[in-house]
Amino acid sequence: MKFRIGVVGVTGYSGLELLRIALDHPGMDCVAAAASESTGEKALEGIHPQFRGRTSLVCIPQNIDRLAEAGLDTVFLCTPNEVSYALAPDLLARGMRVIDLSGSFRLHDSAAYPPWYGFEHASPDLLREAVYGLPEWNGAAVAGARLLANPGCYPTSVLLALLPLIRGKLAKPEAEILCDSKSGVTGAGRAAKLNLMFGEVSENFRAYSPIEHKHVPEICQELGWDIRNFTFVPHLLPVNRGILSTIYVTLARATTVEELEREYHRCYEGRPFVRILGAGTLPELKAVNHTNYCDIGWRLTSGGRRAVVFSAIDNLVKGAAGQAVQNFNLMHGFEESMGLLGGTNGADHG
Amino acid sequence: MKFRIGVVGVTGYSGLELLRIALDHPGMDCVAAAASESTGEKALEGIHPQFRGRTSLVCIPQNIDRLAEAGLDTVFLCTPNEVSYALAPDLLARGMRVIDLSGSFRLHDSAAYPPWYGFEHASPDLLREAVYGLPEWNGAAVAGARLLANPGCYPTSVLLALLPLIRGKLAKPEAEILCDSKSGVTGAGRAAKLNLMFGEVSENFRAYSPIEHKHVPEICQELGWDIRNFTFVPHLLPVNRGILSTIYVTLARATTVEELEREYHRCYEGRPFVRILGAGTLPELKAVNHTNYCDIGWRLTSGGRRAVVFSAIDNLVKGAAGQAVQNFNLMHGFEESMGLLGGTNGADHG
Amino acid sequence: MKFRIGVVGVTGYSGLELLRIALDHPGMDCVAAAASESTGEKALEGIHPQFRGRTSLVCIPQNIDRLAEAGLDTVFLCTPNEVSYALAPDLLARGMRVIDLSGSFRLHDSAAYPPWYGFEHASPDLLREAVYGLPEWNGAAVAGARLLANPGCYPTSVLLALLPLIRGKLAKPEAEILCDSKSGVTGAGRAAKLNLMFGEVSENFRAYSPIEHKHVPEICQELGWDIRNFTFVPHLLPVNRGILSTIYVTLARATTVEELEREYHRCYEGRPFVRILGAGTLPELKAVNHTNYCDIGWRLTSGGRRAVVFSAIDNLVKGAAGQAVQNFNLMHGFEESMGLLGGTNGADHG
Amino acid sequence: MKFRIGVVGVTGYSGLELLRIALDHPGMDCVAAAASESTGEKALEGIHPQFRGRTSLVCIPQNIDRLAEAGLDTVFLCTPNEVSYALAPDLLARGMRVIDLSGSFRLHDSAAYPPWYGFEHASPDLLREAVYGLPEWNGAAVAGARLLANPGCYPTSVLLALLPLIRGKLAKPEAEILCDSKSGVTGAGRAAKLNLMFGEVSENFRAYSPIEHKHVPEICQELGWDIRNFTFVPHLLPVNRGILSTIYVTLARATTVEELEREYHRCYEGRPFVRILGAGTLPELKAVNHTNYCDIGWRLTSGGRRAVVFSAIDNLVKGAAGQAVQNFNLMHGFEESMGLLGGTNGADHG
Repeated sequence: MKFRIGVVGVTGYSGLELLRIALDHPGMDCVAAAASESTGEKALEGIHPQFRGRTSLVCIPQNIDRLAEAGLDTVFLCTPNEVSYALAPDLLARGMRVIDLSGSFRLHDSAAYPPWYGFEHASPDLLREAVYGLPEWNGAAVAGARLLANPGCYPTSVLLALLPLIRGKLAKPEAEILCDSKSGVTGAGRAAKLNLMFGEVSENFRAYSPIEHKHVPEICQELGWDIRNFTFVPHLLPVNRGILSTIYVTLARATTVEELEREYHRCYEGRPFVRILGAGTLPELKAVNHTNYCDIGWRLTSGGRRAVVFSAIDNLVKGAAGQAVQNFNLMHGFEESMGLLGGTNGADHG
Repeated sequence: MKFRIGVVGVTGYSGLELLRIALDHPGMDCVAAAASESTGEKALEGIHPQFRGRTSLVCIPQNIDRLAEAGLDTVFLCTPNEVSYALAPDLLARGMRVIDLSGSFRLHDSAAYPPWYGFEHASPDLLREAVYGLPEWNGAAVAGARLLANPGCYPTSVLLALLPLIRGKLAKPEAEILCDSKSGVTGAGRAAKLNLMFGEVSENFRAYSPIEHKHVPEICQELGWDIRNFTFVPHLLPVNRGILSTIYVTLARATTVEELEREYHRCYEGRPFVRILGAGTLPELKAVNHTNYCDIGWRLTSGGRRAVVFSAIDNLVKGAAGQAVQNFNLMHGFEESMGLLGGTNGADHG
Repeated sequence: MKFRIGVVGVTGYSGLELLRIALDHPGMDCVAAAASESTGEKALEGIHPQFRGRTSLVCIPQNIDRLAEAGLDTVFLCTPNEVSYALAPDLLARGMRVIDLSGSFRLHDSAAYPPWYGFEHASPDLLREAVYGLPEWNGAAVAGARLLANPGCYPTSVLLALLPLIRGKLAKPEAEILCDSKSGVTGAGRAAKLNLMFGEVSENFRAYSPIEHKHVPEICQELGWDIRNFTFVPHLLPVNRGILSTIYVTLARATTVEELEREYHRCYEGRPFVRILGAGTLPELKAVNHTNYCDIGWRLTSGGRRAVVFSAIDNLVKGAAGQAVQNFNLMHGFEESMGLLGGTNGADHG
Repeated sequence: MKFRIGVVGVTGYSGLELLRIALDHPGMDCVAAAASESTGEKALEGIHPQFRGRTSLVCIPQNIDRLAEAGLDTVFLCTPNEVSYALAPDLLARGMRVIDLSGSFRLHDSAAYPPWYGFEHASPDLLREAVYGLPEWNGAAVAGARLLANPGCYPTSVLLALLPLIRGKLAKPEAEILCDSKSGVTGAGRAAKLNLMFGEVSENFRAYSPIEHKHVPEICQELGWDIRNFTFVPHLLPVNRGILSTIYVTLARATTVEELEREYHRCYEGRPFVRILGAGTLPELKAVNHTNYCDIGWRLTSGGRRAVVFSAIDNLVKGAAGQAVQNFNLMHGFEESMGLLGGTNGADHG
């Protein structure tokens, strides 16, 4: 069985990645691709030359009428916050399911939007309804979602690494968690900006938005962690793809690498996209790029009282489009990994 | 129907890419992966972390007995010339089909080996038997091959661009053809060498082996072109993957871009992996990387009497492993593109 | 003796490089740095953090009054064509000498501006007066210049390689010259553009503006070569700096590498910034980046009847700011290499 | 006045950088360059093409007799630990001063060598004599040194950032300090290794030797910090140069960014190579690369009870060769910044 789907925001990197997966997904009939009016109606291959010979789909303007005409079951919004925020209510009202890759519906508390996102949120009911789509932890709720808030790229990398320690009571409550994350440039979008130009990024490295990044409330909400005890410092890597997070956690008591290994395995038993590397091998970007995997490894210090946890994902796949499809699969009764193993998931040297 | 296949030389980049494709190929049962003795018997994921969770295959030593034990129908040799040259006759003698990615069986004339490859070739009979596997031009012979010589990466990029001009009598005979090619580092293999280190390649660019590169006789053999009228200058790009060739051809008479377009379309009609861009769009690496496509475009100068032809491929896919699988498909009666579209072939931003 | 100089266009890469050299130049007192109004008056270190602790200069708006106030002897215009074109006449009228790094005054024939630059040139007298500042070939005229047109980056790399062959009658007249050039991204300026973003350039490679690049008439003017017999194909390299040109020249008669070597040495005898590598070593970007050198090497083919000439420069130094300072030195009676050897010119691994 | 100096280990990146600085240094007469026997006696430009036209120095074998013959005042050892360890005593015995860039003489306690460096140290007297050359903190001792142990690259970046907090009693004693560092590839040397090849490093990122890196005891020795409370996690960046350290420090009491700023200014008042960015601007590699600067900035969290301190250096300049020359200057009564400002220190866009 195939569901008719549409992708909005196809000029960006996550839209491109989502289309790439959708075109080969056995449960999707990708019938609409949309972008802002300024893009104009043109063939997808005119936007991304990668699609030559792969699809004859023509990009349409991302307005509600054009999307409704297409008779879609599910719409993926790979759009900036303000676009997702404006489009989602209308799409839902017209009977479509929505998987939103922006941050517009991730926070439960509408009061958090002004300080962190800079806008008042006028749909607190949708915030209540929206399901936070981290399938490894929230799969049951995902299955019944009408509005799915797909996690941010940094939150995905941090939550998959930390939730086992926090839910398993291994992390010391009220201690500070420090999260030093490094991301490739596609995480910052595809709009032309000086600080993302090759001449500025190549042979450079820097932190940005330390402590105040808008993914902080999202991470703390899902961890159930006091935001005052969470320090997040993202950095911009001169690579196209991938996030590596190095996370420093004080443990509740001295523990062993074996105990950690048991806990992580207990949490991710049978989950196809979390690979537990333990204390031996360190995660690295090249092992996860172009795949939907999250690799997790760790070291213990201070006689087992502190853990350094490493996690690696591809920010465009597990951190965006791949996870959105994983959520789509659960929402439509498909196998979780449908369309996500195979080529995209295979071995890529880097 | 599935055929039992083995891959020799899995520690290198083309071996890695071939395994990645083979593991998802509907017509292959990948039962053997081999490498030099020094690698030892270890899990593939210990060699390439990309294979974690994808296969439990253990790498074996690349000797004839171990390979014969595996009951293989076809062996892919992703090995250096000397290894392919030594292994292929034994594999054939034991009834296996061989697809060799090295240069050991590409030249018909054994006398060309000493000057270009530095060794005497003792199996002129196998040189006569071997089929040069450029499927767009040699598909019929490929179908019946027992020993298939998979084309080199540069030759693939150059031949697909030039053969329509030469076979179509558009190129001026006895004029000089100039080929300025640029390749990513994986084309040079995965052995540790100073001049391939990040600190030497990054922010650098240079030509290497100009005029005397060992792919010259291979290209001229397939073109049927006088080697004295062919100038080939390869350069090393600071990228992982991809070859862009810029080829300067004197035409037999003034021609038009439309006439060129007709000729290229005539030659590649119905071929799934050649995309003809014509005189409008220029080929670029990001459009072909991680795919089996070859993109070809051109410009005319001098009132239509000279063509500048551009071609782009992924050196590891259409220039190596992907083309080897395309040949495998033809040799086994499968559809040419089996296992080569889908994920690997999709949109990748670069 | 020190001359008061100003640099206009300091937000760009060539302005940055010029300031860097100017601040350490023993014959310059760098008293003004200017940029467009939109930049505002701010400390240079607020524009380029590299200047922290190096200068307290404050950037001023690039209008004629502010520049005139500064009492400058010489103004370097590191500005787009339209800004240089507008500012230069006023600066000259107020008694300043002008070294312009744009293309506004490089072509002698005003009729060439509309087709190649897209604007009508209203100062044919200034075009007649302007001296084309390639010091190795035009040093005497440079010394007396009031308006100096600093060569383009591609023309510098091509002219230094070709002029010995053409002036020495080694190149075959009326044969075609093919020039395949590859440049780092800083050659395209520092304005935010989608196709110069890291995510688009990294792991990518492509030609752009083949045959029609606006440096073509400049090169042919200086070579004295028929533009119909000159094919120029520039490509964008994923590096910050550097141009490597690979140039294919038909020779007037069979010649030897030694003969070429004698001719190049004859032409560049005593010139501090051209290094002749001959037929042994190939030029590469890392050997010239961050220096004012041009490295030239070659190979002969076809029994000595065709030359492949390689030249490498740093597009921001010898291709822009460094050459501008070299011209300044000649215009002010200083030693040609003043301020251009030493640190900037030293060994940089790349 | 000029001192005769020699550089040993010129085939590596720090040797190259030291030579580059030495050739332009007004107080040095660089008369000897040496490398291992296997390099052979050849012109420097045959090892590093950057030196073409800059020096006619010929590389000699790095044995004590050849070095002694050269009549050197000071020898810079840019060599691996085992070479420095073997050569230094002989050089001192023959009356030369030694500035060693390896780790062989940095630890005061010989007992620390077996566990951290893997060898028994047989010269505890030299360990006692050696001066740890961090000039901003140890300048007086540096001035009288005969054997100078030049700090490691990571220690330089960490110590300059942390010493003000620790000496100023702002850091909480017995709390844990977490140091998350990221370095370019030249920090790992220039020997050909698989994991440093372009194909492995580009588009990749990973931690290595977390917690157990051999720079840990060096950092703790100089901080006077309990090694059990110091967690150090280095990562490999896909860039040629630069270290950015992100350091998490628990403070003794709630403090303000202004208080931190006063303390840092107090410590580095008048020091030419530390630039204090405070809480506004974040350090980045492009601002320090190719210079001897260390940029330091910070943020406060948890109501002022925790600091995140950022520091950026060029690992080859302030983290190796530049600092070695800074020490040379102090040892010879020159101004601290001699030969280190100017070109190398200027603005480089990245």
